[in-house]
Amino acid sequence: MLVVMKQDASQASIDRVVETIRSMGYDARPIPGRQRTAVGLIGNDGRVDSARLEGLEGVLEVIEVSRPYKQVSREWKVEDTVVTLPNGTRIGGREIVVMAGPCAVESREQIVGIARTLRDMGATVLRGGAFKPRTSPYSFQGLGIKGLELLAEAREASGLAVVTEALDAEGVDLVAEYADIIQIGARNMQNYTLLRRAGQVGKPVLLKRGMSATIKELLLAAEYLLAEGNGQVILCERGVRSFDTHTRNLLDLTAIPVIQGLSHLPIIADPSHGTGIRAKVLPMARAAVAAGADGVMIEVHPNPEMALSDGAQSLYPEQFAELMEQMRVICRALDRSLVPPLDLETSVPAP
Amino acid sequence: MLVVMKQDASQASIDRVVETIRSMGYDARPIPGRQRTAVGLIGNDGRVDSARLEGLEGVLEVIEVSRPYKQVSREWKVEDTVVTLPNGTRIGGREIVVMAGPCAVESREQIVGIARTLRDMGATVLRGGAFKPRTSPYSFQGLGIKGLELLAEAREASGLAVVTEALDAEGVDLVAEYADIIQIGARNMQNYTLLRRAGQVGKPVLLKRGMSATIKELLLAAEYLLAEGNGQVILCERGVRSFDTHTRNLLDLTAIPVIQGLSHLPIIADPSHGTGIRAKVLPMARAAVAAGADGVMIEVHPNPEMALSDGAQSLYPEQFAELMEQMRVICRALDRSLVPPLDLETSVPAP
Amino acid sequence: MLVVMKQDASQASIDRVVETIRSMGYDARPIPGRQRTAVGLIGNDGRVDSARLEGLEGVLEVIEVSRPYKQVSREWKVEDTVVTLPNGTRIGGREIVVMAGPCAVESREQIVGIARTLRDMGATVLRGGAFKPRTSPYSFQGLGIKGLELLAEAREASGLAVVTEALDAEGVDLVAEYADIIQIGARNMQNYTLLRRAGQVGKPVLLKRGMSATIKELLLAAEYLLAEGNGQVILCERGVRSFDTHTRNLLDLTAIPVIQGLSHLPIIADPSHGTGIRAKVLPMARAAVAAGADGVMIEVHPNPEMALSDGAQSLYPEQFAELMEQMRVICRALDRSLVPPLDLETSVPAP
Amino acid sequence: MLVVMKQDASQASIDRVVETIRSMGYDARPIPGRQRTAVGLIGNDGRVDSARLEGLEGVLEVIEVSRPYKQVSREWKVEDTVVTLPNGTRIGGREIVVMAGPCAVESREQIVGIARTLRDMGATVLRGGAFKPRTSPYSFQGLGIKGLELLAEAREASGLAVVTEALDAEGVDLVAEYADIIQIGARNMQNYTLLRRAGQVGKPVLLKRGMSATIKELLLAAEYLLAEGNGQVILCERGVRSFDTHTRNLLDLTAIPVIQGLSHLPIIADPSHGTGIRAKVLPMARAAVAAGADGVMIEVHPNPEMALSDGAQSLYPEQFAELMEQMRVICRALDRSLVPPLDLETSVPAP
Repeated sequence: MLVVMKQDASQASIDRVVETIRSMGYDARPIPGRQRTAVGLIGNDGRVDSARLEGLEGVLEVIEVSRPYKQVSREWKVEDTVVTLPNGTRIGGREIVVMAGPCAVESREQIVGIARTLRDMGATVLRGGAFKPRTSPYSFQGLGIKGLELLAEAREASGLAVVTEALDAEGVDLVAEYADIIQIGARNMQNYTLLRRAGQVGKPVLLKRGMSATIKELLLAAEYLLAEGNGQVILCERGVRSFDTHTRNLLDLTAIPVIQGLSHLPIIADPSHGTGIRAKVLPMARAAVAAGADGVMIEVHPNPEMALSDGAQSLYPEQFAELMEQMRVICRALDRSLVPPLDLETSVPAP
Repeated sequence: MLVVMKQDASQASIDRVVETIRSMGYDARPIPGRQRTAVGLIGNDGRVDSARLEGLEGVLEVIEVSRPYKQVSREWKVEDTVVTLPNGTRIGGREIVVMAGPCAVESREQIVGIARTLRDMGATVLRGGAFKPRTSPYSFQGLGIKGLELLAEAREASGLAVVTEALDAEGVDLVAEYADIIQIGARNMQNYTLLRRAGQVGKPVLLKRGMSATIKELLLAAEYLLAEGNGQVILCERGVRSFDTHTRNLLDLTAIPVIQGLSHLPIIADPSHGTGIRAKVLPMARAAVAAGADGVMIEVHPNPEMALSDGAQSLYPEQFAELMEQMRVICRALDRSLVPPLDLETSVPAP
Repeated sequence: MLVVMKQDASQASIDRVVETIRSMGYDARPIPGRQRTAVGLIGNDGRVDSARLEGLEGVLEVIEVSRPYKQVSREWKVEDTVVTLPNGTRIGGREIVVMAGPCAVESREQIVGIARTLRDMGATVLRGGAFKPRTSPYSFQGLGIKGLELLAEAREASGLAVVTEALDAEGVDLVAEYADIIQIGARNMQNYTLLRRAGQVGKPVLLKRGMSATIKELLLAAEYLLAEGNGQVILCERGVRSFDTHTRNLLDLTAIPVIQGLSHLPIIADPSHGTGIRAKVLPMARAAVAAGADGVMIEVHPNPEMALSDGAQSLYPEQFAELMEQMRVICRALDRSLVPPLDLETSVPAP
Repeated sequence: MLVVMKQDASQASIDRVVETIRSMGYDARPIPGRQRTAVGLIGNDGRVDSARLEGLEGVLEVIEVSRPYKQVSREWKVEDTVVTLPNGTRIGGREIVVMAGPCAVESREQIVGIARTLRDMGATVLRGGAFKPRTSPYSFQGLGIKGLELLAEAREASGLAVVTEALDAEGVDLVAEYADIIQIGARNMQNYTLLRRAGQVGKPVLLKRGMSATIKELLLAAEYLLAEGNGQVILCERGVRSFDTHTRNLLDLTAIPVIQGLSHLPIIADPSHGTGIRAKVLPMARAAVAAGADGVMIEVHPNPEMALSDGAQSLYPEQFAELMEQMRVICRALDRSLVPPLDLETSVPAP
């Protein structure tokens, strides 16, 4: 950490900064420059609270040189984290996972049917919302517990593992009973009560990047999970807010290699929410794999025209089959492969 | 609502859109154009779920002509909402409210002392965090219930009303016991579980705009509160995310007159979080008042250099006094005035 | 075009809008709604100046339903535009073009050497700046005309076609003498004097998207070129401004399929400027091809550590060779292939 | 400047950075840290080209501690720059300048009439476009030289000084013949050919901030003007691009105090382009003055409903008169005053 002093900062101010750093238990080293002095904080263990320094007299700015996160960092753990699901799917290794399913669980027929179709096409994880966070209080909010029960039925019937979203701390316990992965949505990326509970519940967590979260903030949100003892974390890029209105969000695929450099956690992409437009999901799912994503999460609906939410971005099953073929080819350029399809006879559904 | 068809949309697709609109209970009117046809949805009562239409074949885009929010809208209620606090402070009328206090409650001495100082300088509402949402799990997270108790003591001692943040549904009940206004922070603007509980608890709510929330999203978040029966809502502009790193956020003061045109709810500005820099708080607080804000929320700390959080953006008490003078002058240009200072003898502290 | 009236707009205001539209030579159709009236403008030929309508009394907003651009639009010309260069490279068909070279031309040895290397590795177009737009007046600004001469020498020696940037109208004439493609940089996307001259000079133009240009603005900038009679236009996505500072820009790959839906013009991606970091260029170049780009533009330097500009984002030649292999595999997933390598014996360098 | 090394950087890489810095003529000081080493560059005179260092092996990032601009910096020149116009208006001192007029010059009657009206209401500078940069090639592009002649006539008739935009280097010479201030528009903020010519022509320059320019980029663009010897530069905040579509741009008023801290140059605000909506111009002009702007630039049209461009954001003359009154009151809170109105008898129009 570097504390940059104002050009006209007095020697007393500089001394004050040095003392404060020492009182925090770190070493301080003043670096006089031509225009101004800076004070280096030596020994930063990733737990320095810069707020203590920013308010001091004569301080122009505090620049982080060390990373503010710790356990999520690749400097803390060099080898890639691999999350293994009960049905054998491994996320974060050389294989690329495909999670697919409708935006929302709507009925037994819908979710069980599509789960079987997706399994046959090669997906190994089923997505589907039981609790839906909706911008308007007047939109469909999901089937709730009934939806969780239907997801569990679909797992029985298909062998797919299940990922679904929890909206609050109580929801975490509920979702953990039924699902294999607890999803934390973009709007809740900095809902710390939710993060802490999800970090305690002992199931893998899929953490989506917030609408305008920096990569640093995403990693700090993941740090909340690891700080509670849960290392089974999968990150997800799902598009950030931008100034153009042609697409719902701007899918930031560069975040994938950037995060892979900074962290050992696996990262997947959600091109369905990332674009919001069916016709753009295929190209962007392909691009995510080519950029090195450890997986993709795709909305597929048996009948998108009748979907209760996000129909405009859901693929038809035949489009999904085409996408699987394309991704299989692209994997090879990176010396990777898709997670092998489930063999229903031998797959072991989660309890 | 206008459903714009693709240029090559078939008549069957257009008919399908018309039927779907009618099945939703509204009237549909096709409007043929030179390049394409559009279908108008007539009778929109603000509850139309456009997702039903976006997924239909041949649809290019759905354009909202009516507003998707309802009870927060000025078209629903023409007169300004005025929120009245137990100590007599009125928010949303001709008077401009000043809320001030430290970022976090740190000790009895700190909070009671600053409350008295601020009251003497003319503020009528005390801010101070008991539960602090922090980006890093390693930063100071607030005193919790102890902090709420100290806020209540400071209210007794000063007559100021108290506003403080709730981080989750349980927190809402707790905060409602001690505070006069429940604050919902920027990170939680779309935490719907939290919004719903806050809408049920019967106390005024201060709703901060999310880091990259559009004005429409802010109003829809407020709609969650009103939909639960709570009309005592104060909105707060606190800066949005931008590409420049000179300031922590970009304070969007234009949002103030824009929202006043769209909604009857009062709106205040938080220039402390909006800029993150002490020296910029005075000019931006003045600017907020000049732009027509119904109030400002200002961080003031008895000793910013020792603050446990956000010291760099906290004013010294003497700076706050100077700001009060400046705002008093600016008010006159708009034919408004500051909320009159409390007369401690006669002020009625909240129970 | 839809003119949406305020809720309380008088009948006289509505009539005024109708008259104004008719006086502009179009047909007007009022559409009464539950909350407000809208007036449809029928017969929009892409040349309507909405400013005439926005200022009228009672108008809330003007919504474009037709596209404001015309000749660049796929509705104007259905088939893909293919730009053919003197050395036989075709841009915009089933083949994917690779443009490569250093950020700036630095010396004969550098540019001729790298051109031969790149040709041997399969590139068919050489990039290299002779005139460099630099944020600071104190940075290296390019070799100027000397740089253009060296590019022409490199073309002779390698058979590669040459693309290089023009900074102003005079520069266009100069660049057109030496290069095969005139590049217009991101900072100049809305430099209309430059666009007009480039539209008149009779050579293909590579138009880069501005730092925060919407897709609509990019297409309108291209419309300036076509309006001057130049249909040989290649668009280029090179990253937009965002709030995260981990990468220099945010490469918006979704823009590629979006633009391919809206326009018949070819579009390539520049992952070198789009990310600004060497290690991210490979993944993002692969992703661009997977997203459907008609080509990529890559910075390669014989010795990036000694580069006079943008060394941090330039590939080593061996990395470029690896990338060529990867892109060759990815192409297949889309049923496309790279532009075939030049056969030096038979290639026809531009005069 | 601080060169931060990767955690695993070898001693050889560190030595290489130290040598490179020394070869550039500066002093280097390695600072070992717990996680990584950083190398300080001592003696930065604002002309260091960081590109030389970013490409070196083992370098993680280069952090600027000194400012990359020089002559525009307050550290280079402490006292405020005051630009004085031929009619006596001083910009950048204690007085606040009001520039007003129509978006575009449309006719003699329009421009001479409004100039007299504005003069009578207290403005001292007339704005009006003769050359208009328009997003679409099909929009009205201004009257050109005829417009410049009419502006000069309006100056004769009113005593107001004239500011108008130049679009290219040739335009600079032309505009310099007729106007008192040469305006460089947002789209051209990084048009370096234009900046250089404007820096040479010996007239004050009004430089508008680019659509998504950082404050650093704006100051570096101004540095181009000062580097050519022109110190008579006025900066202008006119709104930046954001994600909300309620307003055309997001007026960044915080930039005003931030820039006043960094630079000695005067800075004004343009709330007309900054908001794009007539009803928001008054509050934002007031807010700009309250934030400390050295002036405002306001679009006023004798008949906004008939304006050929930007009618929706132009004030009616009576609204402008009301605004003048409000700004006069707000000034007092800052101990400032408006530039005194011209006394036509004694005012000295520019030759």
